[in-house]
Amino acid sequence: MKLQLALDVLDSRKAMALAEATRDYVDIIEIGTPLMKHEGVQVLKKLRKAFPDKIIFVDLKTMDVGEYEADFCFSLGADIVSVLGVADLETIKGSIKSARKYKAKVLVDMINHPNKSKRTKEVEKLGADFVGVHSGIDQQQRGLSPLNDLKDICHVTNMPVFVAGGINLSNIDDIKKENPHTVIVGATITSSDNPALTAKEIKESLS
Amino acid sequence: MKLQLALDVLDSRKAMALAEATRDYVDIIEIGTPLMKHEGVQVLKKLRKAFPDKIIFVDLKTMDVGEYEADFCFSLGADIVSVLGVADLETIKGSIKSARKYKAKVLVDMINHPNKSKRTKEVEKLGADFVGVHSGIDQQQRGLSPLNDLKDICHVTNMPVFVAGGINLSNIDDIKKENPHTVIVGATITSSDNPALTAKEIKESLS
Repeated sequence: MKLQLALDVLDSRKAMALAEATRDYVDIIEIGTPLMKHEGVQVLKKLRKAFPDKIIFVDLKTMDVGEYEADFCFSLGADIVSVLGVADLETIKGSIKSARKYKAKVLVDMINHPNKSKRTKEVEKLGADFVGVHSGIDQQQRGLSPLNDLKDICHVTNMPVFVAGGINLSNIDDIKKENPHTVIVGATITSSDNPALTAKEIKESLS
Repeated sequence: MKLQLALDVLDSRKAMALAEATRDYVDIIEIGTPLMKHEGVQVLKKLRKAFPDKIIFVDLKTMDVGEYEADFCFSLGADIVSVLGVADLETIKGSIKSARKYKAKVLVDMINHPNKSKRTKEVEKLGADFVGVHSGIDQQQRGLSPLNDLKDICHVTNMPVFVAGGINLSNIDDIKKENPHTVIVGATITSSDNPALTAKEIKESLS
């Protein structure tokens, strides 16, 4: 099971420091949506250069112009980008088209989709590489967790499943039982007093 | 009726040049979603400095952490940001909360929402300032136009309506009949051989 670190800060320097501190325990480095909007492609270029051997995921959460947004990320070395499940299927197709050009991958993020199982099957047919089961931070505030959706989605798809949404050391065992491909952790690591230690503990709990 | 120029390029320099060329005819300058993801806040800072008297709209298309994303845009001088109608209501509330802090405004973009009229009434109750009727570029590729949605939405809300989606000199009269608050034009101006002239013609057709 892979560990993806979601860099949920706004500043490139903080992002680089977090990625550096946790590098021994993290498989995939995620440039969070707000970080990308705040810093632009310079943060992708810096991370790509500093971490040539890591998988880099850009959480674009694309809602329109799937190919256009994915193209510039893949051309700068991103390995995976996300597109929203609630986007038009043409948008999702565009992201996938870009990924095939660059021999890269697309994750479809099911955040707030009203029928995640149906949509998962639709995007699997289109050639999406991964599906993301994701309770947003605003949704976590009102008590939502991704666990039930994770159980549902794991049963309807052959795509590797990524899971995100308030995952920490106290709930990770339940998540692990569903055997997702990748567990995405943000604040539990990035807001920890000791991000390296927390990343290590989470990584160990996944093995 | 206001004219909003959607800067749909990726590069800050091109964006600045387009805003400069069309400044006499454009009321609202929009930083398009891909431009924001590509350039980050530096493009907002540059536009704010160069165009102190224009309204600046950041097309964040926020899907999560509404307050967090809006905060950094408003703190740098953005006047309006967008949040997605398909986002969780908590996310939309977050964007609105941020706008109230900064005495700024939020537009809820209805792109790809399955029930735009119902959602429009919901977000109006939450205190959203504007609603956006928007056929995405990927949707225009398969023949969708915003006109029918515009007619529907204008009848259910008191919020000022912004409209976007393939608007050009040949279809603008139909749009104008519905009396939206703001007409958003991108490629028709930004891909024109003479962006200033095209912006002038569109602005005149709106008056």
